[in-house]
Amino acid sequence: MYKLVLIRHGESLWNKENRFTGWTDVDLSEKGVEEARNAGALLKADGYTFDVAYNSVLKRAIKTLNIVLEEMDLLWIPVIKNWRLNERHYGALQGLNKAETAEKHGEEQVTIWRRSYDVPPPALTADDERYPGNDPRYADLSSEELPLTECLKDTVDRFLPLWHDEIAPTIKSGKKVVIAAHGNSLRALVKYLDNMTEEAILKLNIPTGTPLVYELDENLKPIKHYYLGDQAAIDAAMNAVANQGKKG
Amino acid sequence: MYKLVLIRHGESLWNKENRFTGWTDVDLSEKGVEEARNAGALLKADGYTFDVAYNSVLKRAIKTLNIVLEEMDLLWIPVIKNWRLNERHYGALQGLNKAETAEKHGEEQVTIWRRSYDVPPPALTADDERYPGNDPRYADLSSEELPLTECLKDTVDRFLPLWHDEIAPTIKSGKKVVIAAHGNSLRALVKYLDNMTEEAILKLNIPTGTPLVYELDENLKPIKHYYLGDQAAIDAAMNAVANQGKKG
Repeated sequence: MYKLVLIRHGESLWNKENRFTGWTDVDLSEKGVEEARNAGALLKADGYTFDVAYNSVLKRAIKTLNIVLEEMDLLWIPVIKNWRLNERHYGALQGLNKAETAEKHGEEQVTIWRRSYDVPPPALTADDERYPGNDPRYADLSSEELPLTECLKDTVDRFLPLWHDEIAPTIKSGKKVVIAAHGNSLRALVKYLDNMTEEAILKLNIPTGTPLVYELDENLKPIKHYYLGDQAAIDAAMNAVANQGKKG
Repeated sequence: MYKLVLIRHGESLWNKENRFTGWTDVDLSEKGVEEARNAGALLKADGYTFDVAYNSVLKRAIKTLNIVLEEMDLLWIPVIKNWRLNERHYGALQGLNKAETAEKHGEEQVTIWRRSYDVPPPALTADDERYPGNDPRYADLSSEELPLTECLKDTVDRFLPLWHDEIAPTIKSGKKVVIAAHGNSLRALVKYLDNMTEEAILKLNIPTGTPLVYELDENLKPIKHYYLGDQAAIDAAMNAVANQGKKG
């Protein structure tokens, strides 16, 4: 009935440096630009087109979308940017190297912060320069909405209103939608769509720059989903994400 | 009271080839990309920031805006794309070389088409492949709104509703606005703001990739306006545009 396409942004400069990024506004790496270009070329080759796009307010997702739309000759479609599609906020870990953090706090603790559903990393304080209330792009958010840290449950909770209020009605109106966002905001959506358990969603690693297509019935229940592109490359990309928490 | 910034897109591939472009969706040239980058750098250096951007639905203006916003680290602001900011539709001349057209029809006739306020170039027919009704980006326009050709007066008439209904109220709400558009849609705005005669607006050549700042009072009446950047380079750019109609 409907097709919805999800794209996780290509590799960023901090993915490469293995640092916790969260809401830090890090740029794409050259490889990330290339991944975005490939995603656009795949979508175009398979005959996809879109009427509207949803995007976070972070440049790695915005640039990924712009590159995809340019490849598809769709730069003219409306793009709605919303903070609810941002990556999970990583609290006081933002900016730290993942391997060094594992050395310091133990791999087990880092795995809990990265992979438990409801245990958030240590929180920022409001006087931290990383506090999102200091950033003009979040000027319209209430202090309750501005995160100091998030577990995946928090990301799900702040993402879903955008889904229910805007994205789902747009899909039901017949518009073809693409969402370019982040590992954890896309997990939030996938968990909701597929009604996945907390354990199952934590094991799912969505590869970067790889279009993920959901076919949805008239009630937006998934019929099936699949990635576009070469399956061996997709498996390798999923494993690369899963291994980022390791010390070595 | 308010500052409004206008940017004409950088050089396109057809500016370079000296062809009538109009609504043809031609890409920026390398020089055009560079012009956009310079415009963004100038705005950033002078401390400008924006809350919202308006754009046409043509890629040369969209890419110009994206490059400007990236330079200013403002990719996250809302961007509203609207066909009313498109270049003047050039009718059946779209795609033709300006010098060849001058050879064929005489320089005088071409000057009339390019520089008279209310004489449009020859019209397209609705069965022409260039008819905008064939393009999905104009699917929501009525057949009265879809142009077959336009004189500058027509461009003014279809631009002004966007100004009155959306852009002017946004400026009055206190939001800092940038508009990235085209030579003639920006002329339409400048004519309106400065209450210029038909003769005067036809003599005004807005240079590409050069931020044009309007300071407006509380009723959006201009107090003054100025270009950012090196004045000699701006004069050269204005003359380059004025000379495009010549045969030689």
